[in-house]
Amino acid sequence: MNIWIINGPNLNLLGRREPEIYGTRTFEAFFEELTTEFNHITLHYFQSNHEGELIDKLHEIGFSADGIILNAGAFTHTSIALGDAIAAIQTPVVEVHISNVHRRETFRHHSWLSAPAAGQIVGLGLTGYKLAIRYFLEK
Amino acid sequence: MNIWIINGPNLNLLGRREPEIYGTRTFEAFFEELTTEFNHITLHYFQSNHEGELIDKLHEIGFSADGIILNAGAFTHTSIALGDAIAAIQTPVVEVHISNVHRRETFRHHSWLSAPAAGQIVGLGLTGYKLAIRYFLEK
Amino acid sequence: MNIWIINGPNLNLLGRREPEIYGTRTFEAFFEELTTEFNHITLHYFQSNHEGELIDKLHEIGFSADGIILNAGAFTHTSIALGDAIAAIQTPVVEVHISNVHRRETFRHHSWLSAPAAGQIVGLGLTGYKLAIRYFLEK
Amino acid sequence: MNIWIINGPNLNLLGRREPEIYGTRTFEAFFEELTTEFNHITLHYFQSNHEGELIDKLHEIGFSADGIILNAGAFTHTSIALGDAIAAIQTPVVEVHISNVHRRETFRHHSWLSAPAAGQIVGLGLTGYKLAIRYFLEK
Amino acid sequence: MNIWIINGPNLNLLGRREPEIYGTRTFEAFFEELTTEFNHITLHYFQSNHEGELIDKLHEIGFSADGIILNAGAFTHTSIALGDAIAAIQTPVVEVHISNVHRRETFRHHSWLSAPAAGQIVGLGLTGYKLAIRYFLEK
Amino acid sequence: MNIWIINGPNLNLLGRREPEIYGTRTFEAFFEELTTEFNHITLHYFQSNHEGELIDKLHEIGFSADGIILNAGAFTHTSIALGDAIAAIQTPVVEVHISNVHRRETFRHHSWLSAPAAGQIVGLGLTGYKLAIRYFLEK
Amino acid sequence: MNIWIINGPNLNLLGRREPEIYGTRTFEAFFEELTTEFNHITLHYFQSNHEGELIDKLHEIGFSADGIILNAGAFTHTSIALGDAIAAIQTPVVEVHISNVHRRETFRHHSWLSAPAAGQIVGLGLTGYKLAIRYFLEK
Amino acid sequence: MNIWIINGPNLNLLGRREPEIYGTRTFEAFFEELTTEFNHITLHYFQSNHEGELIDKLHEIGFSADGIILNAGAFTHTSIALGDAIAAIQTPVVEVHISNVHRRETFRHHSWLSAPAAGQIVGLGLTGYKLAIRYFLEK
Amino acid sequence: MNIWIINGPNLNLLGRREPEIYGTRTFEAFFEELTTEFNHITLHYFQSNHEGELIDKLHEIGFSADGIILNAGAFTHTSIALGDAIAAIQTPVVEVHISNVHRRETFRHHSWLSAPAAGQIVGLGLTGYKLAIRYFLEK
Amino acid sequence: MNIWIINGPNLNLLGRREPEIYGTRTFEAFFEELTTEFNHITLHYFQSNHEGELIDKLHEIGFSADGIILNAGAFTHTSIALGDAIAAIQTPVVEVHISNVHRRETFRHHSWLSAPAAGQIVGLGLTGYKLAIRYFLEK
Amino acid sequence: MNIWIINGPNLNLLGRREPEIYGTRTFEAFFEELTTEFNHITLHYFQSNHEGELIDKLHEIGFSADGIILNAGAFTHTSIALGDAIAAIQTPVVEVHISNVHRRETFRHHSWLSAPAAGQIVGLGLTGYKLAIRYFLEK
Amino acid sequence: MNIWIINGPNLNLLGRREPEIYGTRTFEAFFEELTTEFNHITLHYFQSNHEGELIDKLHEIGFSADGIILNAGAFTHTSIALGDAIAAIQTPVVEVHISNVHRRETFRHHSWLSAPAAGQIVGLGLTGYKLAIRYFLEK
Repeated sequence: MNIWIINGPNLNLLGRREPEIYGTRTFEAFFEELTTEFNHITLHYFQSNHEGELIDKLHEIGFSADGIILNAGAFTHTSIALGDAIAAIQTPVVEVHISNVHRRETFRHHSWLSAPAAGQIVGLGLTGYKLAIRYFLEK
Repeated sequence: MNIWIINGPNLNLLGRREPEIYGTRTFEAFFEELTTEFNHITLHYFQSNHEGELIDKLHEIGFSADGIILNAGAFTHTSIALGDAIAAIQTPVVEVHISNVHRRETFRHHSWLSAPAAGQIVGLGLTGYKLAIRYFLEK
Repeated sequence: MNIWIINGPNLNLLGRREPEIYGTRTFEAFFEELTTEFNHITLHYFQSNHEGELIDKLHEIGFSADGIILNAGAFTHTSIALGDAIAAIQTPVVEVHISNVHRRETFRHHSWLSAPAAGQIVGLGLTGYKLAIRYFLEK
Repeated sequence: MNIWIINGPNLNLLGRREPEIYGTRTFEAFFEELTTEFNHITLHYFQSNHEGELIDKLHEIGFSADGIILNAGAFTHTSIALGDAIAAIQTPVVEVHISNVHRRETFRHHSWLSAPAAGQIVGLGLTGYKLAIRYFLEK
Repeated sequence: MNIWIINGPNLNLLGRREPEIYGTRTFEAFFEELTTEFNHITLHYFQSNHEGELIDKLHEIGFSADGIILNAGAFTHTSIALGDAIAAIQTPVVEVHISNVHRRETFRHHSWLSAPAAGQIVGLGLTGYKLAIRYFLEK
Repeated sequence: MNIWIINGPNLNLLGRREPEIYGTRTFEAFFEELTTEFNHITLHYFQSNHEGELIDKLHEIGFSADGIILNAGAFTHTSIALGDAIAAIQTPVVEVHISNVHRRETFRHHSWLSAPAAGQIVGLGLTGYKLAIRYFLEK
Repeated sequence: MNIWIINGPNLNLLGRREPEIYGTRTFEAFFEELTTEFNHITLHYFQSNHEGELIDKLHEIGFSADGIILNAGAFTHTSIALGDAIAAIQTPVVEVHISNVHRRETFRHHSWLSAPAAGQIVGLGLTGYKLAIRYFLEK
Repeated sequence: MNIWIINGPNLNLLGRREPEIYGTRTFEAFFEELTTEFNHITLHYFQSNHEGELIDKLHEIGFSADGIILNAGAFTHTSIALGDAIAAIQTPVVEVHISNVHRRETFRHHSWLSAPAAGQIVGLGLTGYKLAIRYFLEK
Repeated sequence: MNIWIINGPNLNLLGRREPEIYGTRTFEAFFEELTTEFNHITLHYFQSNHEGELIDKLHEIGFSADGIILNAGAFTHTSIALGDAIAAIQTPVVEVHISNVHRRETFRHHSWLSAPAAGQIVGLGLTGYKLAIRYFLEK
Repeated sequence: MNIWIINGPNLNLLGRREPEIYGTRTFEAFFEELTTEFNHITLHYFQSNHEGELIDKLHEIGFSADGIILNAGAFTHTSIALGDAIAAIQTPVVEVHISNVHRRETFRHHSWLSAPAAGQIVGLGLTGYKLAIRYFLEK
Repeated sequence: MNIWIINGPNLNLLGRREPEIYGTRTFEAFFEELTTEFNHITLHYFQSNHEGELIDKLHEIGFSADGIILNAGAFTHTSIALGDAIAAIQTPVVEVHISNVHRRETFRHHSWLSAPAAGQIVGLGLTGYKLAIRYFLEK
Repeated sequence: MNIWIINGPNLNLLGRREPEIYGTRTFEAFFEELTTEFNHITLHYFQSNHEGELIDKLHEIGFSADGIILNAGAFTHTSIALGDAIAAIQTPVVEVHISNVHRRETFRHHSWLSAPAAGQIVGLGLTGYKLAIRYFLEK
């Protein structure tokens, strides 16, 4: 089984940026933990601050991977093109947000990705990524 | 560990109501499966079509249970009182929706429960309830 | 033939409440007249101020009755759960309003029940209930 | 007793236009059936695709007819002038829609005619016209 | 003189729920103080988390009591049916809110009860209930 | 000098329609008075309930008349085509409303004709037509 | 006969301010012309950039003058208090605007004064003041 | 104890203006009654139609008075500057409205003063001022 | 091949009306040019300022013509009835606008015809009509 | 003559993505057909999923090419920067959409490119590109 | 060189009002510092809580001063009349806000002064006034 | 001291693009002038049409530079990701716009960067960059 985690803009600063919202652990450290826990499947990680690179990556893996876990950061709220990319590929996508976006500014409540994605896991911290992996395993 | 699943209006018709959206399995059948899979914890189930009964139940269990999984059905979109009940109690609540509400009518996109709840799991079918239980186990 | 008339909140005060809008006859008196006029079919009457009881009643009768005539009073404008109940059952529902809601406050112009219901009869006084019965007889 | 049925734009194509919404019977065929069923009263029928002709007709008959049944088609949603004509005449008008407009596009949910009209019958098919006639007979 | 205080959803948790907004005193303790201070009139207290029970109670007392003080909690912002009940009864109703709702979330700024109620006392803490009693005494 | 008064839909019923808003005098009677008072200029009068006829008339006279006084009735609020016709011709147009439309329903507050017209006279009764004539005389 | 012309903020700069919109004549020069033309009645003129002074003046003259012509400048669009003053006094008020406000920014299209005023004359230049005087003379 | 009552625009016409809304008693007469009833505290009264004078007065007394009762009339709905003045001073302010503003035009439902004020008393007539005094006495 | 060009209100003034937007050539002159260029097909031209006549014409030709090119002028933005007529007939319709409506007033950005039409050609001048003909030829 | 076709995000998947909307032919195959048909002019093709690359390309060619045909995919609805780039260059741009965007989700109805572009061709399939080339040839 | 600083409502309380937003220094102290630093030009200072006085002052100095620096406090968000005054005078105006209004309540994000002013300096503390002076010096 | 100037999309065309809005000088020429005037500090310049590159650059310099001056062009109005990047770094950012965006299209009035930025300088031409440098020098 072949699962990709894709993170969008500013998530490369995790552990360094607004730690009261996102915690102090880097995503790289967390990803290592994930590969240990789920050592029977293949996990990949990609991060970019470029909308175009995220779309390119979805196109590249979206006809062969078994599952994609996407936290598109602020592009969630502005990128119809990313939503179209999710709709255009075949691999199912689960949308994840670390913080509870519904407790934050109003403009973070709307996601252009929710309708084309299979579903959403919101506000459950880094555990949300784990649950998304388990979702693909359950299917 | 002590976890409650609370379902709101019309979810008693699961398996019978709009099967193209909600599937054909009854929630009772699914709950039995859950209690088998998670036999090391105590799971409870409550369903009501009465907003007041759901609030009463949250008050009753919300200072002693370890976790509450709430699918409030259509009350999700109309009940500020349920949201206030979630904010008023101490047990964390995870909001679950079986279908991807963001693919459906616009009025199903807004939830009065999302901000007071810990987080949301949306569109992942009955598996969403399982993931919510795992979330409480992980914590 | 088996037809239910279901009235929602404050309609128990008919004849007593704002008579310049709703007239001075009680619904019970009117219902007696109906059972006399339509004595070849079975007519039932249920009224409640509790949204949950209205939903429970729709579930109870909604897979066996031949027709349901629903005047949900103010729940018309606020209850998505009632609308979902109408969609979830099999018996067709005709929505009735005694007064012409479109001449009154703007918030009375929208109904959550209109889309799931078969149709609406609005503003034709208590005669609206009669016409709804005739609709089921015509079908 | 003297009752007019007035149909607005595109209803001349009934039976030919979008039959999955409006059925395959022409209105002329249906009107013949009506005159047979209600042979003790005088029924008239008028159709036009011209807003001005509909207003002229309402002015012409609106001080002598006993009842007017108006299905103004798409003018329902755009013609304040028709609404003003209904308010300006003395004969009561019942607004009829064949399909359940509340299940269709949002712009079909609002009617400029509902407030000045006596009431509305919506979504009950051609039977709606019959019920409107019965309403005038009951009065 | 016969005055009722009616509290809506979640107000049974007063003293226990979000004390930074609502304080730490229970309403029962406060009510005892009120009955001592206003011992020359009859005071009654009713609380429910069920919208239907609040409507039933208003109907029951609303043609005989001298005054009703209503803090409908979150139903204030969602229940047109409660507003209709206030309009349908004869006893005047004063709407009370303990906290200054206008400093809180936008959805707490609108009340369906304000127009049918005689008036509002907002943000003056539990003292608001006292002032409402004095209003009825002054009349 | 050559001035046209053009009235739109339902204004042919003046004196007969809602006299509490529009008074009991017919426009024809008033026009006779006008021709007496302003006997040194040529006054013309045209009324139609057809938007197309009003546009045709504006085209016909709009390159030769000295002034046009237009009360477009309800078309004021719905007809962009009439506004375009005013912009397309050369004769200046003064928009007149008999009643104070700003005291009536919100949809009567907006006019598609105001921007292309030279100006507006509103709420001054039939006197408004006189003032409009005087405006053209003053120019 | 006793008529007041009241001008609001920035109209003291007339003839000096944005002459492409308002022309180059000062209001004082125009007022002199008015007093000559209407020498059989008493005309008064008052201008202020202070909302409070305009309200005070309306109160002072509003129970004795025969007519008030008010061009409230930008206060037209922001002052509910001025509108309340017009409603509170007994002398009828005609609202005048020199330019056609409906051709300018959207925020100039709404007037808080239109509903309480008797009527409006808009876009007819300084002639609008003359027409307003004639309106009071006609009455 | 030192309490100020401050009234805003058009309230100087009380007893003279729209008596069906505001009654026929002048505020001066009522204030005399208040000083008699509350003769153990010092009451002051100030009225102005000038927003600037109201702000100046709040600044002048807002660091020494024990309580301010403010009925800002129409400035309630338009003056952010008054709201800022309330937030800038130290004396608590209770907002009072004589009529039930929620039964009147929509633009009277919003108050720029409610959030910075301690609370509101609305719709209880002149009695509202008394209750506000009692609120300061209770504190 | 049989193609109709249908023009709506005010387009009869082309060449005469606002030449800075629409140019100085009459449509009749342009149509002659078209018939010369496309002399192997049958081209028809119809213009009306009457919404009803445009609908009648669409009904008349819409079951036999091979293509319809419709520039409905201002009816584009107001006529749901024309949109319904397009949906009701069988001949495909291409919507054409001479000017780039998206550079003009906001109310010209929305078209009721775009969804039922096959497509749109906007802002390419009279050439747009030619391209529409070529579209039908290509099909 | 030198014409560029520029395609935006996800259009590289044409023929592979949602074929029920976009058909099964790849754009490369279609482009080859175009170069054959229009062999007397120079056609170029560029596609990117990166907004920045599309802007860079417009800058690069926008002062020398004779025409640009731009289908910006989802960037149409979100990229003001692309619209600014069109306004900043000298070569005219024709906006093309393969599908009729007005039949799809509401967010696809608005284009940031329409005002700065010369015009739009919408919903006419791949033929739209051909018509755009012909437009440049006609000019 | 002759430059005026004009401050609006509540800015007289600077140093005393909400020091966490505006700091603890009085504007008078800061102005003294400014006159020392910019001793080669003439600086003037004016503050008022009266909209009318601010407009009067702008008129008085707006045809002779070299630059005006305006911090209109809350009038920024409500006074179209002040914006009109800026447009009506000849001296350029720079709008200054001490705090970053875009981090505060939504109603502080809109300014009626920004369009008529030359530009804005926002959120840079008292330094903003210095930068505005330097802007006039640079010109 | 170490200060960066970062320019967003289309600003590379400065001097070439819409000179009536942005002037005819290139930014490079202006930057040379700046380095001469502020030769005691280190100034850097970066421009990109790629949102991702701008975010990457902010991350790269945002934990070591002393100040960042950002003119994000059209990304100002669409990029929440850029706003998040400003919030995520430690170096303070001043937002600069050359033209007065509040005089232009409505969509240019809102900035996603204003709240996370320290402040804004708008409409003061290229001088705005100088003032921003001075702001960092003053701090």
